[in-house]
Amino acid sequence: MREPFSEFFGVMILVLFGDGSVAQVVLGKGAKGDWNNINWGWALGVMLGVYCGGVSGAHLNPAVTLANCIFRKFPWKKLPIYALAQLLGAMVASLIVYGNYKSAIDVFEGGHGIRTVGLDTSTAGIFCTYPAPFLTKSGQFFDEFIGSSILMFCLYALLDDGNIGAGNLTPLGLFFVIYGIGACFGSNTGYAINPARDLGPRIMSHAVGYGHQVWTAGDYYFWIPVIAPFLGCTFGGFLYDAFIYTGDSPINAPYMGLTRFMGVRAKAGRPAMV
Amino acid sequence: MREPFSEFFGVMILVLFGDGSVAQVVLGKGAKGDWNNINWGWALGVMLGVYCGGVSGAHLNPAVTLANCIFRKFPWKKLPIYALAQLLGAMVASLIVYGNYKSAIDVFEGGHGIRTVGLDTSTAGIFCTYPAPFLTKSGQFFDEFIGSSILMFCLYALLDDGNIGAGNLTPLGLFFVIYGIGACFGSNTGYAINPARDLGPRIMSHAVGYGHQVWTAGDYYFWIPVIAPFLGCTFGGFLYDAFIYTGDSPINAPYMGLTRFMGVRAKAGRPAMV
Amino acid sequence: MREPFSEFFGVMILVLFGDGSVAQVVLGKGAKGDWNNINWGWALGVMLGVYCGGVSGAHLNPAVTLANCIFRKFPWKKLPIYALAQLLGAMVASLIVYGNYKSAIDVFEGGHGIRTVGLDTSTAGIFCTYPAPFLTKSGQFFDEFIGSSILMFCLYALLDDGNIGAGNLTPLGLFFVIYGIGACFGSNTGYAINPARDLGPRIMSHAVGYGHQVWTAGDYYFWIPVIAPFLGCTFGGFLYDAFIYTGDSPINAPYMGLTRFMGVRAKAGRPAMV
Amino acid sequence: MREPFSEFFGVMILVLFGDGSVAQVVLGKGAKGDWNNINWGWALGVMLGVYCGGVSGAHLNPAVTLANCIFRKFPWKKLPIYALAQLLGAMVASLIVYGNYKSAIDVFEGGHGIRTVGLDTSTAGIFCTYPAPFLTKSGQFFDEFIGSSILMFCLYALLDDGNIGAGNLTPLGLFFVIYGIGACFGSNTGYAINPARDLGPRIMSHAVGYGHQVWTAGDYYFWIPVIAPFLGCTFGGFLYDAFIYTGDSPINAPYMGLTRFMGVRAKAGRPAMV
Repeated sequence: MREPFSEFFGVMILVLFGDGSVAQVVLGKGAKGDWNNINWGWALGVMLGVYCGGVSGAHLNPAVTLANCIFRKFPWKKLPIYALAQLLGAMVASLIVYGNYKSAIDVFEGGHGIRTVGLDTSTAGIFCTYPAPFLTKSGQFFDEFIGSSILMFCLYALLDDGNIGAGNLTPLGLFFVIYGIGACFGSNTGYAINPARDLGPRIMSHAVGYGHQVWTAGDYYFWIPVIAPFLGCTFGGFLYDAFIYTGDSPINAPYMGLTRFMGVRAKAGRPAMV
Repeated sequence: MREPFSEFFGVMILVLFGDGSVAQVVLGKGAKGDWNNINWGWALGVMLGVYCGGVSGAHLNPAVTLANCIFRKFPWKKLPIYALAQLLGAMVASLIVYGNYKSAIDVFEGGHGIRTVGLDTSTAGIFCTYPAPFLTKSGQFFDEFIGSSILMFCLYALLDDGNIGAGNLTPLGLFFVIYGIGACFGSNTGYAINPARDLGPRIMSHAVGYGHQVWTAGDYYFWIPVIAPFLGCTFGGFLYDAFIYTGDSPINAPYMGLTRFMGVRAKAGRPAMV
Repeated sequence: MREPFSEFFGVMILVLFGDGSVAQVVLGKGAKGDWNNINWGWALGVMLGVYCGGVSGAHLNPAVTLANCIFRKFPWKKLPIYALAQLLGAMVASLIVYGNYKSAIDVFEGGHGIRTVGLDTSTAGIFCTYPAPFLTKSGQFFDEFIGSSILMFCLYALLDDGNIGAGNLTPLGLFFVIYGIGACFGSNTGYAINPARDLGPRIMSHAVGYGHQVWTAGDYYFWIPVIAPFLGCTFGGFLYDAFIYTGDSPINAPYMGLTRFMGVRAKAGRPAMV
Repeated sequence: MREPFSEFFGVMILVLFGDGSVAQVVLGKGAKGDWNNINWGWALGVMLGVYCGGVSGAHLNPAVTLANCIFRKFPWKKLPIYALAQLLGAMVASLIVYGNYKSAIDVFEGGHGIRTVGLDTSTAGIFCTYPAPFLTKSGQFFDEFIGSSILMFCLYALLDDGNIGAGNLTPLGLFFVIYGIGACFGSNTGYAINPARDLGPRIMSHAVGYGHQVWTAGDYYFWIPVIAPFLGCTFGGFLYDAFIYTGDSPINAPYMGLTRFMGVRAKAGRPAMV
């Protein structure tokens, strides 16, 4: 039972900071931080979530768990319980954020109990992501797919002792990965790149009264940040293992032999930077 | 006598940077940094305060000292002297900040000796926190309680070698914890989350002429940031020990047996991140 | 084949984050980050690119490879293949950024297929650099030359164990080097300081329809960020080796004897900071 | 000769980034970074200057060298040569910044060769500091004195292995110290806190044509950032040694016996944080 609790609390910390940062920016109308503040919130949310959820490996993301099942021999039977714990952690965290900012949301939306999606006075975007209006469906998908691929590629690089490897700086390295995705690939869809982080708060926001538009907005956008991260993380992990990784991976030798083709690792240990 | 001095100077550094950053933002009217600047100030103030006050364990916060008494066998008899040293450190630091910005405060308030609370030209908010006007009493309490719980939960995670553990990166990790609380849970009450940091400068600001409103503002808000952090830090510490911690804690086995129920630690040392 | 792939993916990560950050700032019209966002993007792009491309030494820049050939005995025969991999990585990354932001670019430029250079509604600056209008040719060159010199001087300092040396903090140190060049020497020409990072996306932007102005803009500015970094990095490396470095370098003894004149190193290991 | 060169280049890197960041903010009129950008510039300038100037101990500041002579047995005879090398490094760096931004300064000041101090279109503040107009002489002095004291107190804490000690994170810790002084004690006088960093560029700016006002501005303010840092750093070092330090210091036992009164250190090594 420790591992699910660890994932639960890890994602809870992640979404507490993440959703909290969006709440502060939206409700503060620019006086309590701007877009950068949101990047800080999600980036340090992941970093501190990793420190809190390290007992279970700190996946904090069902798509990362899936990639680890495929590429790093993580037990497949743990995938459902991990995903459920992650989802519940995100739901509880978003509910706490909602409770904490309830008075401010009432003021912002214009009255007690008014909860809307997609207006200038809407606050639904605090909890889960909604896409920019000019995006096509494939544009929505492509953006989440790329973001998730970059996440997984960089995560595997940070963890690879056969590469430079970040060692005990890995949580800090993840801060920069998440900050970077938010600063560079965040404006189209809001960089969910994590099914639990997006679906959990979406369910919560439906439950507390934001209505069915949380599902229909953006031409039924809601399934994009659930599906695309699974495919993106798998693709990112595949790329890393196929072209860089020399550790034990199903991609390496028996299946495709790409890294074998590229030659064996010259020597063990950290490569010189120059 | 070294430990009280250590706490005194640690909190002094913390509040010098923290109150100084608010002073610069308020008095600069946006030209010398915005809300983010305040987050930087408090976050690096805690980080550098920890480096300066490490001889005494760098609690820097009476609520953290209380949690350590409850959960980490810190001697109860040291609690009063620690709390007093922390309070005095915050008072002296806020007085130095007041002295340094006295001319600028005179300009901002509109004249020599004019000191007000709650107006557009007020400067009382430089020294201690005041809540947003739309908050109920329970809303004020809830916000400080959550912030303090997150602080303690993350702090215990950073310090837990049975988890990932931040090791020598702990002061940097605390930078991100404080920055995150300011960026994500800072807009309601101003994130005191520390009785000494708030009460000390409040006493000082009363003494130098801000009047009795420092106590009556926000419907006698002043006791919230004194009481809520004690309860919040205790709750956060309890959560961490009950669900994650496997070290020696009164929560672990004889009292509630939660972590025993969750199974013993698989193996010592740092868990793999994947 | 692992080394070219490593450089390819390292530069790809670098330019994905870098060009992505500019895209978000330009297309967001200030609502999705300002100038600082661009500095974050390039700085963390280099940092994470180094983690991803460590297998090949993480040069990520033909001018750095050249300096390593001159001063650090890096094999000259690898220079062309490194430079080609770096160039291709930058091209592919900029194409992905272009694809991801295509809809937003259409909106910004005012229509499908409209692609311009140098207007208020132009988006060519997302991909490669264009100089400020008041600069002379020598001013353009001087700015890129200084930036590249600082890059190389600081990089050699970070890697020098005979100096303090950044050790496993080197990628983080590079974050600050790139952020610094962007924050302090970025406003004149946009701090390309890397032939591959600038030429690759310029070729790509010509190919997708930005027209011949990508080459003629700024009085045929395009060759400056190709040539100046090679000279700047060489000069920066020369300065470091001549006045600070005591390791094995062609500058040290037989050629100029400058460091011999300055006396031998007192003792090995890390020098005390005080 | 290696040590003076090391201080020269360390301060040169420091002032290149520092003055460069101010140039970009002033000349960019808000579009190329705001006040925070200046904090980043000086903070990472010190951090990277330390990495570059580590061979000589990376004082980078005559006032730090003086404090080390008093409290850390640094040879007094080296003080003049260190101070001279630091001053020259700052002069050369500010001249490079001036050269790089010459065209932009011409545009900003309104014409070729127009160089002014204290007007809205003045650019003298790029190179050295000028105080806020409402400050008295003692207010100017107090601000620089406090900033320098905090600098030295925190620096000695970061370097003290008997405290937590920052170890190889010391340059990063200094980033936060400098950022903090700029974000919290920077708006009154511009936080020179370093005689070489301020006097060197002031001499340079006089030489290139900013006129005698660089000396007379702020009621002959120029001597404040030369004298106050020496006194402030000495005071900060004294405080740290008297109340925290247990290593070998003239303050510790024979002179004042303060730390002896406070009891001997309990045990060697890093103290536990809790």
